[in-house]
Amino acid sequence: MNNGGGGNGRCASPGTKQRTGAAGENGVAAEPAWRTLTLETMNQNVRALEYAVRGPIVIRAQQIEKELQEGVSKPFAEVIRANIGDAHAMGQTPITFLRQVLALCLYPALFEDSALPEDAKQRARRVLDGCGGRSIGAYSASQGIECLRQDVARFIERRDGGIACDPNDVFLSTGASDTIVNMLKLQVTGEGRCRTGVLVPIPQYPLYSAAIAELGAVQIGYQLDEAHGWALDVAELRRALGEARHVCRPRALCVINPGNPTGQVQSRKNIEEVIRFAAEEKLFLMADEVYQENVYADGCEFHSFKKVLFEMGAEFSERVELASFHSTSKGYLGECGFRGGYMEVVNLEAEVKAQLLKLVSVRLCPPVPGQAALGVMVNPPQAGEPSHAAFVRERQAVLSDLAEKSRLTENLLNAIPGIHCNPVQGAMYAFPRITLPARALQEAAAAGVAPDMFYCMRLLEETGICLVPGSGFGQKEETHHFRMTILPPVAKLKVLLEKLAAFHVRFTHDFS
Amino acid sequence: MNNGGGGNGRCASPGTKQRTGAAGENGVAAEPAWRTLTLETMNQNVRALEYAVRGPIVIRAQQIEKELQEGVSKPFAEVIRANIGDAHAMGQTPITFLRQVLALCLYPALFEDSALPEDAKQRARRVLDGCGGRSIGAYSASQGIECLRQDVARFIERRDGGIACDPNDVFLSTGASDTIVNMLKLQVTGEGRCRTGVLVPIPQYPLYSAAIAELGAVQIGYQLDEAHGWALDVAELRRALGEARHVCRPRALCVINPGNPTGQVQSRKNIEEVIRFAAEEKLFLMADEVYQENVYADGCEFHSFKKVLFEMGAEFSERVELASFHSTSKGYLGECGFRGGYMEVVNLEAEVKAQLLKLVSVRLCPPVPGQAALGVMVNPPQAGEPSHAAFVRERQAVLSDLAEKSRLTENLLNAIPGIHCNPVQGAMYAFPRITLPARALQEAAAAGVAPDMFYCMRLLEETGICLVPGSGFGQKEETHHFRMTILPPVAKLKVLLEKLAAFHVRFTHDFS
Repeated sequence: MNNGGGGNGRCASPGTKQRTGAAGENGVAAEPAWRTLTLETMNQNVRALEYAVRGPIVIRAQQIEKELQEGVSKPFAEVIRANIGDAHAMGQTPITFLRQVLALCLYPALFEDSALPEDAKQRARRVLDGCGGRSIGAYSASQGIECLRQDVARFIERRDGGIACDPNDVFLSTGASDTIVNMLKLQVTGEGRCRTGVLVPIPQYPLYSAAIAELGAVQIGYQLDEAHGWALDVAELRRALGEARHVCRPRALCVINPGNPTGQVQSRKNIEEVIRFAAEEKLFLMADEVYQENVYADGCEFHSFKKVLFEMGAEFSERVELASFHSTSKGYLGECGFRGGYMEVVNLEAEVKAQLLKLVSVRLCPPVPGQAALGVMVNPPQAGEPSHAAFVRERQAVLSDLAEKSRLTENLLNAIPGIHCNPVQGAMYAFPRITLPARALQEAAAAGVAPDMFYCMRLLEETGICLVPGSGFGQKEETHHFRMTILPPVAKLKVLLEKLAAFHVRFTHDFS
Repeated sequence: MNNGGGGNGRCASPGTKQRTGAAGENGVAAEPAWRTLTLETMNQNVRALEYAVRGPIVIRAQQIEKELQEGVSKPFAEVIRANIGDAHAMGQTPITFLRQVLALCLYPALFEDSALPEDAKQRARRVLDGCGGRSIGAYSASQGIECLRQDVARFIERRDGGIACDPNDVFLSTGASDTIVNMLKLQVTGEGRCRTGVLVPIPQYPLYSAAIAELGAVQIGYQLDEAHGWALDVAELRRALGEARHVCRPRALCVINPGNPTGQVQSRKNIEEVIRFAAEEKLFLMADEVYQENVYADGCEFHSFKKVLFEMGAEFSERVELASFHSTSKGYLGECGFRGGYMEVVNLEAEVKAQLLKLVSVRLCPPVPGQAALGVMVNPPQAGEPSHAAFVRERQAVLSDLAEKSRLTENLLNAIPGIHCNPVQGAMYAFPRITLPARALQEAAAAGVAPDMFYCMRLLEETGICLVPGSGFGQKEETHHFRMTILPPVAKLKVLLEKLAAFHVRFTHDFS
């Protein structure tokens, strides 16, 4: 857990100056002596972490947007942000019912408004009944509003064919990210070879690598099999675990299903294998299932780890520790800004659960509007309720649009010579492999950046398209990828893919 | 930064079982061998942290509420929660204008509603213009919506008599707690004697002690002077710092003004002294100013650290690093549930600021409804706008009610023999000293709890009043206190204080 600073006896004497005003190592003037907090003196774990989804490419994209506003001439009129799964920013319309419930919760004078449907009022009343002083501005319980945790439990039971869920095992959270980090935080201990190791897929969503770096744990990558549609191979899990045991103490296994950035949907059989592996190897399972509603490919179906675990019988369901995560940000809602989410824990020791509750109580509670949004997600309009028909229509429109865009993206990417894209079975991203000419690799090396960063930065400067380089997610050595969302509206998505095709041909030509 | 687990070579061989099914140390059956995560194997920094505001007393209060619901007979009809600054839960009415703006942001169909005032619509439009896809459901920039950061900067400038504030120095956040922890996280490094030390007042708000414990830093307590109205004495700061330099590397100085739990308001002169001290000793100043609107006592005035720093001239304003914190949860809004807040940084090195931005980007963004609520806080209705009169009336009603309750609480507490309460000049709490009879101390020791925990738990069981023991905030040895909020409505507050008086007399009698 060493996160920087001097080791034993090596730090400067307490209170003495660490820096002078003289020239520093690089010959440039060092920071003035009055500073306490510099790149050198800060927490080095924080300095080391990376989060590509909002990294240098996105910072440059923001600058370009400002330049465009200021009238700087560019070969494009707008930046197209396909770097992040931000549905509403890409034009997806919010689900009306959710917003009606939230408006009622926030401004109860609207209960008098006859234009708002009765089922929305009923949901809002349920939320407010659970709030101190019937105000969404009160702190909730740290674990989340009790009646909403009950609703989450019923949602999970319906999803999992009736397998029981105890509301006391449900923790509402500030998006899924927050609770994933808390669950990792609970597990991280040790120094040197005793440090906690966490198995994560490669490619992975960089929240995991960032949190592991920040906590000073050890990331153990297991490669997803690109040649087989990014499948998770238990033999590869075993290899990664075996090697890691020489350098750390592996404790947790993270799985992202449907895959981010890779878009594969795990088969039921594969999930069983992973559960068996976790049981054999005594690993805490962390199942990131935030894309569970986002399954598009024929023959693919989402199976929750919880459901499969319980269907495997008591030998597993009573002896594998599992945490699974869900969110309001994805699915058909796309309500990222609310930061709503939940975690369900299974087989977590009671005393540890009390410690988790203590840990989350320090931040008091997750944002209550986000809890209310989550409440709608898990308890949407039912048949017979006034909003049901409109809700079903809106939900279906979003999901079939996403399904169409997943196919469109896959097909158009695969039509570009030098680009290969596995099926986008689920989630919201394509993660195609790109073939880069040798001279591009050399120039990238000379510039000190990853080849796909070099590619994506050039793409941004020439076309305004903002993607995330595969190096930000991890990938097999000497392979190169990028992640793009399938979220832009169809017409814009086509333009994006046409521009990308032209760029790729040009890039390949220029560096050949 | 050792947060548990074995040291060099002391951890169990990687992959071997750490526990057997046999009886454990205490003679009770140990956890089964399949568990990976137990009290013993979890992160010991998390295990060590405490957060009294939602600690054992509050957990018991929740149980009692359930028992009352289930019809269990108690000597009281309801639990009165005076443990936390949760204004709406205590019946405070939300500011109408804020809720109107939020409802418009969430459900833009309401722009057609002629009952909603034009200034609310204008504010909502400003927020939505700053949102991707004009939806509050889109992720914002990680630092917060740009136009709202501009509004925060103008708010700070007005507050500080025109001293400039750069919106790029403003970070919107998930309440103040989140950003306080991030600012500490940036600074924590080292092992053993090189560990980062953080100066915090005693008594302190336990977010600080919890975050310091979680991060593995060293808490350096400086005693506030109870005999002089909880004044901050720089000589005491110097003593604490000097002693700490033998055991850690002090880097940061936290000040809470107005004080939590202590309710004092710092004089301008005292703030100057603290700034001089921080400059001399090269400490990063962290000013928790979330109660800046909550000043009640005649002759007291809030001065921000930023303002005083700049009024002291370039010698200080160009060479003291400062972060100050504010929130939507307190003041006259009391909108805790939104988790809205901001931090302003002054003299933070540009590269470190980039690291901070990277750190916060991992969680994507603060909840956007909370950002919108903060936007209203910093840009409320102005004279000439349609909502101005009602807004001023509502704000004034809240603040004068709080002022009345601060006096009432102080006076009634001081009328109880054996209780002494300093003036509640600001914030939302009284932190009276209680004299406990010797036999109560003995019984508490026998029960293995702090004497004021013993007292508060008994108070809860006998009267339903939920307070937080002083030991949860830190206090001078052999003194005992509790924290209570002044938030209950006047009538209920009187009942609370009468019951407390009767209890205190009875308790003193029973244990004498």
